[in-house]
Amino acid sequence: MRTPKWTLRLCAASLLALAAPAFAAGQADKDLLEVAKALFKPLPTAEQMQEKHAFTDAQVKLGKVLYFDPRLSRGGTLSCNSCHNLASSGVDNMSFSQGHKGQFGGRNSPTVLNASLFIAQFWDGRAADVEEQAGGPLLNPLEMAMPDEASVEKVLRSIPDYGPMFDAAYGKGKKGKANITFKNATDAIGAFERTLLTPSRFDQYLAGDINALTPPERAGLKKFIDVGCISCHTGVGLGGDQFQKFGLVQGPYWKFTGSAKPDDGRFEVTQVEDDQFVFRVPGLRNVARTYPYFHDGSVWSLEKAVDIMGEAQLGQKMSGKDVKSIVTFLNALTGDVPAAALVLPTLPTAGPDTPRPDND
Amino acid sequence: MRTPKWTLRLCAASLLALAAPAFAAGQADKDLLEVAKALFKPLPTAEQMQEKHAFTDAQVKLGKVLYFDPRLSRGGTLSCNSCHNLASSGVDNMSFSQGHKGQFGGRNSPTVLNASLFIAQFWDGRAADVEEQAGGPLLNPLEMAMPDEASVEKVLRSIPDYGPMFDAAYGKGKKGKANITFKNATDAIGAFERTLLTPSRFDQYLAGDINALTPPERAGLKKFIDVGCISCHTGVGLGGDQFQKFGLVQGPYWKFTGSAKPDDGRFEVTQVEDDQFVFRVPGLRNVARTYPYFHDGSVWSLEKAVDIMGEAQLGQKMSGKDVKSIVTFLNALTGDVPAAALVLPTLPTAGPDTPRPDND
Repeated sequence: MRTPKWTLRLCAASLLALAAPAFAAGQADKDLLEVAKALFKPLPTAEQMQEKHAFTDAQVKLGKVLYFDPRLSRGGTLSCNSCHNLASSGVDNMSFSQGHKGQFGGRNSPTVLNASLFIAQFWDGRAADVEEQAGGPLLNPLEMAMPDEASVEKVLRSIPDYGPMFDAAYGKGKKGKANITFKNATDAIGAFERTLLTPSRFDQYLAGDINALTPPERAGLKKFIDVGCISCHTGVGLGGDQFQKFGLVQGPYWKFTGSAKPDDGRFEVTQVEDDQFVFRVPGLRNVARTYPYFHDGSVWSLEKAVDIMGEAQLGQKMSGKDVKSIVTFLNALTGDVPAAALVLPTLPTAGPDTPRPDND
Repeated sequence: MRTPKWTLRLCAASLLALAAPAFAAGQADKDLLEVAKALFKPLPTAEQMQEKHAFTDAQVKLGKVLYFDPRLSRGGTLSCNSCHNLASSGVDNMSFSQGHKGQFGGRNSPTVLNASLFIAQFWDGRAADVEEQAGGPLLNPLEMAMPDEASVEKVLRSIPDYGPMFDAAYGKGKKGKANITFKNATDAIGAFERTLLTPSRFDQYLAGDINALTPPERAGLKKFIDVGCISCHTGVGLGGDQFQKFGLVQGPYWKFTGSAKPDDGRFEVTQVEDDQFVFRVPGLRNVARTYPYFHDGSVWSLEKAVDIMGEAQLGQKMSGKDVKSIVTFLNALTGDVPAAALVLPTLPTAGPDTPRPDND
């Protein structure tokens, strides 16, 4: 599953490293931009996403209501937004998220923002896309804990106003209610999540506006490239497009993170020995706001997380100055959640047969 | 604490009951409107609220961010909006709300919508206003469970961007940070809550537009008046302006509700015998969406709640037709949450000293 794309990208970076000293500052900035353009990509627009993935406005609208509806949890208190809070950049800023009956899961909730662009979902990549991912927490007994897909459908079918919304999103089913399915529900949530793109100043920069990043941020970008962070953190998400072992060069990783217990990562999915401690590389957009870090939320400081990455993944102890410089760049990756996504929906009123919250 | 206002209002209603048959339908509708105007009041406008209670836009803005910030809870997962969800008319649609470490409280979370208009807050009226109320759940060990006021202040002071927001809302304190206080925080939450007014078609009706209510809704209104619901449910909130014993005419109340255990209500606050089983009368705006009903969320059907009120409070078993007619009217009390309140804020990023969630 590991992609060799980064080797090409590293070549581009090396060219810069060799070439940079020969140019004046202005030229160096232009060269840095060209290298950045080769390594990264600006976010697609909402229109491009919609065209590429062929979802409709009605699906997005439905998906947003579902995303905020706590009746999709057995206990009646948890919605997608509970752990992927759009008010805090799509995370809950917890090491582990609190699920059904106050239980805690075993991995950190990654941000939902821009997540649809990644090659796979979950830290171990066990879901192919956001549509598949959306079904996971619904049925996970530690999370939203719905007993099965039919229970989710029963809830949705019992709430009268969901009928017209599913009709609008998926057409009328043959038997009237047949379009209210688990699959359509998670598909709609996925459609909504595909709209959660957060353009930042870095995208303006990649579009050619050198001054969209401050000089210290550009210096941080150069350091980010030169140090080798781009081995994994490239592309449109600055990560999210490959799997990598945590502790690749120096390990085990918990030597650095102080993690309470080892996590086999992707090995749990593939049972392939090489996949032990392998995780999907997280994207770095909004990273300054999506603390705590790593699959177990073991590290709260972005400086420390960058420092650990240098040691564990690249085998180099960076200076404090270099770490700070990279963090300065990473702060420029904080983007804005689309305004439409931030408007709380009005949840449809329950019907007489809507199952009641079950916390027994 | 019980107000005799309703006796005057009942007189107005009786006049109508006597007079109505003598008039043509058109005149009866006009008379009903006049009686309704005497019994109820349209919601104030946002501007009127702001002028009357002298809060600023900056305080509302700060209050909204605080309202949605789960860092005001010890465990890091609960905000005011968790139990008073603006997506579901200011409640969580749970019998009891889930608080710190998955614990459940002992009373139903009343809606925050229009709550600032009530004579007192909480089911037992132990807080004078929404500003005072806001502090309660923060420190309640079963709810947000912050250890004390100083802990709340410590969290807020540790989050850099709260500084300018408190400055804008409360002026710069003498020692720079002294304006970030528990009192100012709850005051700001209260200011935000005072904006949560939900005008409905009933307000248009009270403003003189008879057709803002359908004929069945007007019939339900007349039934609501004639039956005597207006003994308690009058004024701007259709309730919320007096205390009343649950089981006033027929009791004990749990005979009707099937409540798991009796609740002494306001007696717990006053220790006065007459206050046993006395609660603040809930307002009925948005009642169709703020199920389950009563102080213990023991009843999920609005029809059943109306039926119980007839028996327990008025000593009459209403016909199913009358109950349905009243419920038809009550549905017209569902209003819209102000658009500005529904826009999720972007929560300010934690600082290095921000306390971490504590779920131990």
